[in-house]
Amino acid sequence: MRKIYLEDTPLAEAQQRIASRIRFEPTVEIIPTREALGRVTARPVYAKVSMPNFHASAMDGIAVKAEKTYGADEQHPVRLRRQADFVEVDTGDPIPEGFDAVIMIEHVHQIDEETVEILEAVAPWQHIRPIGEDVVVGEVIVPDRHRLRPVDLGALLAGGNVTVPVLRKPRVAIIPTGSELIEPTETVAEGEIIEFNGAVFAAYLQEWGAEPLCHRIVKDDYELIKSAVKTAIRDADMVLLNAGSSAGREDFTVHVVEELGEVLTHGVATRPGKPVVVGIVDEKPVIGLPGYPVSAYLNLEWFARFLVSHYYGLLEPQRQRIKATVGRRIVSVMGAEDFIRVTIGCIDGQFIANPLTRSAGVTMSMVRADGLLRIPPGDLGYEQGEVVEVELYRPLEQIQNTIVSTGSHDLSMDVLHTLLRKANPGRFLVSSHVGSMGGILAIQKREAHIAGVHLFDEERGTYNQTYVEKYLRDHEVVLVQLVYRQQGWAVKKGNPLGITSVHDLAKDGVTYINRQRGAGTRLLFDYLLKQEAVDRESIYGYSREAVSHLSVAAAVAGGTADAGLCIYSAAAAMDLDFVPVAEERYDLLMSASFYRSQEGQELLACIRSAEFAAEMEALGGYSCRDSGKIVFSSMTHA
Amino acid sequence: MRKIYLEDTPLAEAQQRIASRIRFEPTVEIIPTREALGRVTARPVYAKVSMPNFHASAMDGIAVKAEKTYGADEQHPVRLRRQADFVEVDTGDPIPEGFDAVIMIEHVHQIDEETVEILEAVAPWQHIRPIGEDVVVGEVIVPDRHRLRPVDLGALLAGGNVTVPVLRKPRVAIIPTGSELIEPTETVAEGEIIEFNGAVFAAYLQEWGAEPLCHRIVKDDYELIKSAVKTAIRDADMVLLNAGSSAGREDFTVHVVEELGEVLTHGVATRPGKPVVVGIVDEKPVIGLPGYPVSAYLNLEWFARFLVSHYYGLLEPQRQRIKATVGRRIVSVMGAEDFIRVTIGCIDGQFIANPLTRSAGVTMSMVRADGLLRIPPGDLGYEQGEVVEVELYRPLEQIQNTIVSTGSHDLSMDVLHTLLRKANPGRFLVSSHVGSMGGILAIQKREAHIAGVHLFDEERGTYNQTYVEKYLRDHEVVLVQLVYRQQGWAVKKGNPLGITSVHDLAKDGVTYINRQRGAGTRLLFDYLLKQEAVDRESIYGYSREAVSHLSVAAAVAGGTADAGLCIYSAAAAMDLDFVPVAEERYDLLMSASFYRSQEGQELLACIRSAEFAAEMEALGGYSCRDSGKIVFSSMTHA
Repeated sequence: MRKIYLEDTPLAEAQQRIASRIRFEPTVEIIPTREALGRVTARPVYAKVSMPNFHASAMDGIAVKAEKTYGADEQHPVRLRRQADFVEVDTGDPIPEGFDAVIMIEHVHQIDEETVEILEAVAPWQHIRPIGEDVVVGEVIVPDRHRLRPVDLGALLAGGNVTVPVLRKPRVAIIPTGSELIEPTETVAEGEIIEFNGAVFAAYLQEWGAEPLCHRIVKDDYELIKSAVKTAIRDADMVLLNAGSSAGREDFTVHVVEELGEVLTHGVATRPGKPVVVGIVDEKPVIGLPGYPVSAYLNLEWFARFLVSHYYGLLEPQRQRIKATVGRRIVSVMGAEDFIRVTIGCIDGQFIANPLTRSAGVTMSMVRADGLLRIPPGDLGYEQGEVVEVELYRPLEQIQNTIVSTGSHDLSMDVLHTLLRKANPGRFLVSSHVGSMGGILAIQKREAHIAGVHLFDEERGTYNQTYVEKYLRDHEVVLVQLVYRQQGWAVKKGNPLGITSVHDLAKDGVTYINRQRGAGTRLLFDYLLKQEAVDRESIYGYSREAVSHLSVAAAVAGGTADAGLCIYSAAAAMDLDFVPVAEERYDLLMSASFYRSQEGQELLACIRSAEFAAEMEALGGYSCRDSGKIVFSSMTHA
Repeated sequence: MRKIYLEDTPLAEAQQRIASRIRFEPTVEIIPTREALGRVTARPVYAKVSMPNFHASAMDGIAVKAEKTYGADEQHPVRLRRQADFVEVDTGDPIPEGFDAVIMIEHVHQIDEETVEILEAVAPWQHIRPIGEDVVVGEVIVPDRHRLRPVDLGALLAGGNVTVPVLRKPRVAIIPTGSELIEPTETVAEGEIIEFNGAVFAAYLQEWGAEPLCHRIVKDDYELIKSAVKTAIRDADMVLLNAGSSAGREDFTVHVVEELGEVLTHGVATRPGKPVVVGIVDEKPVIGLPGYPVSAYLNLEWFARFLVSHYYGLLEPQRQRIKATVGRRIVSVMGAEDFIRVTIGCIDGQFIANPLTRSAGVTMSMVRADGLLRIPPGDLGYEQGEVVEVELYRPLEQIQNTIVSTGSHDLSMDVLHTLLRKANPGRFLVSSHVGSMGGILAIQKREAHIAGVHLFDEERGTYNQTYVEKYLRDHEVVLVQLVYRQQGWAVKKGNPLGITSVHDLAKDGVTYINRQRGAGTRLLFDYLLKQEAVDRESIYGYSREAVSHLSVAAAVAGGTADAGLCIYSAAAAMDLDFVPVAEERYDLLMSASFYRSQEGQELLACIRSAEFAAEMEALGGYSCRDSGKIVFSSMTHA
């Protein structure tokens, strides 16, 4: 059918191959020093003038001749006359001819307009800043290949360098390819994909000190792509193609680079990120980046950031690293380097890292990730509780100020986050969704501060408390009521199949979309089936699992299901009809240590605020009549 | 004479005072998402479209109806016909109507043009990216008050947000004041000072996400400064005045702020940085920053960075912190918070922090500093060997790749640094000057990798080795010859006093400038005095100490001394005459562990290169005839 072939080149080897073949020769630009922040020097820069270029007073006081003060002490004060023996000087003033020391104003006693008295002798040069104290002519201010910081600009100017020689920024051409791609827009026809990787590449390149040259989208056509590369390479120091870097039918990158130059690597031994092309055309690097965003961004760092540093002769910038404890087991395959996006929570003073989805297609996983965990090729992964090193995607101080929320998904978390931030700048709330049961287990394993739960106990006809008592017997926790919410059937506009009960779902030709195991909404569905004595086998689609209310609604809106159980606002967001089924209680489960903490009390204040109730009830399908009520506590002391 | 008064307000209290009084109300700008890197969101941003907005193939392969594959296994392969049973799809293609799963191309066996065979059944929805897998309509992409990173821009565009609401950047007016100030230039008349603090403020403010508004220099005149503040405050969210923030005769800031608004704080309990003014005019902060650069930059962080974060409702960005061992005792006074600039070396795997000058006037100390050590007000300082926390000014990976050099000062260190960087990108060499004896002690205390030494042994008439044997008896070290260099008298052009020997220095009316105790050049001078039987008491200026060759030459050039002993190139740099006295051997002392390391061998290669010899000899007064020769080793094994 077609060639299927990708190498498994170790990442470091692929980097070494291209680095050893490329010799950048950056040209030098002389630019105003004031505009040189972040630029890299092309040579060492020396001081042209001394700062100060005169002997200056280091204090507010009087300039004196030191020898006239000799012998002064408490018993033998010495009197000095204005002009003959002293002159008043302020900090930074030149020392007048004939004077050689400064006495601080605090140590001068005024006798009359023309006379002062001192009680202590001073040594020559006391409190005088000699010529060149700050910067002295001829001294190196900054070395070659130095990235200029704000203080460097100051020292350069102080030393008379109004301009500074810097390396021209490397120009990196970005060529998006793909017949399905369209420029970003708010309306997308089916089959179209918004081109957004290019904007991410450009932003990263700017951060790394390169100049991105963004090209127009090129259709999936060998000749068009070839011609785009030939044009781009004239002005650029490096060319990035995205996507078409794998070995499929319409993956032209490898062939284009082969024809125009030389392919050094096609495929690296990493997961994700394997399908990359690294080659050389006209002695310049051409990198074919994969289409999946996560693979693309990782490869961008591995090759584009690497080569930008190579261009400047600088070390690659490193993200901060911390030690974290693995919250859930992470499995890796032998032979490939694994790069796992993780969330990091600071729970009871300990950093806990949990894996996010591994799907390379989920941009949002990069947005949500707090860090990246690298598993070496020879490793099979990590067990829960192992301590690993993680590279941070978010500043450490943010992670330390973040409330980690998990459990069931509800829109109230977004509203709470916004209110919390407004009332307590610098505080964050980050939610992940693992279902209500997952939330209870997360609190048990100390992976989260809080968990949203809505678990119906069939026998007692109550919510949450019996589950908490059962699974968190040895844990001190508090259950706080958050909202009441409507669950119901999301169905197409006008409810064309007339779905009003579980019996309707069991009819022929009706496709259902379910929630994942452990989700409170799934338990509710099972309860409804049982109550109405409908067999789950008769529900077509019972085993197809969506992981959030919005995903359920999206499946109905997308036409792959006719109905699903979800909250009102999710159905409304997808412009679907909603058939109410039940009002349920959605609570927040909190560890006692969090409940007692400042963050915990801040969050409770938000939950109990009128603003929270107003915003939730405006969404529809919510009631806040008991929000903030403590419904259960196993704390031994308040 | 004049009021002398500054408060000692604790820093945190001064910050709290202004924060509690200022309520910024940032306006919202809607800007193109592509241009929003680093901007801060004004509201949560939701997805307007789903990505993908169709069910897409997640693999290269064939789209099938899952039910047609049921029953397939190795023994019972299932044949599928093109179009009726399967359609070829590439990654990202829409799934054609009527199909519901994808089989990877690797698992498809082609039989003929129209027929394929499979050996395994597949489940519905296998290898299909459902609608909204990446971003689903209605989901929060980024929260309120979020600083946008490259990946955020991608997710925003993927979710159909072509524009994004962000907070307008805070505008910060910078007003330089001072009659002695001039715009940066290469020629400076005596008594003039180049204005460079403004450029540093502007660069920092840009880094922190503010928009600097740079005003012209204002003379030291109460009315002019008042009028400048009144004008500036109209367009700005905050005004910075620099300098005039202390309590001296020409320190107008406090009075201007008092007249126009209210002074909240005048003086904080820090060293350096005490003389700051924090006030409010027209409900906006006005900060009077001190003139000394180090004090100014620290106060800029304490107040301007603090208030920019307050404006955005974000946490202040923090520099990375590490634990380091104190290399030399650091003394602090009770009652004030001390901020000590330090160098940090990574010696034998341990971070060693050593204090730089404490003078607030030395911009170069900020350039040279690797980090900042904060000593709390109640602390008396740290003993050598204590472990402290240091805030980093340079990236950790740079510090780890830096060769720490100390000892005597010589220009060869700058040349070596440049050559080393060229041959080994990412490697740095940082030098400090503590004299030859200081260098030997630093190697003994493992504070440095290498030390430049030129210590003459009067008795034996040799250089360095006897000192190393005496002071480093129990240490494994290597002594490598670096250069021979000329020492001589630096005198005014034309040698007006006719100085050719130490006898001439002892004459009436001749002022000498000496080097600090422990400097090899001072030992050489003492040797010359002894040899010629000249009493040191007869040398006027014997006790005045300069800390480098350039400082000696600068003193002669500045007219405060008539002669000093230094190297040729220092005299040449200051356009002085040079009377040769002696050729001396300048060696590099290395710890054995450094000599054996890769960095050590890289450095040796530079020392032995033809380029090094050529560059040094071109400076004049140097010979490299034996550069790189091992002159002594106490290593027990190579």
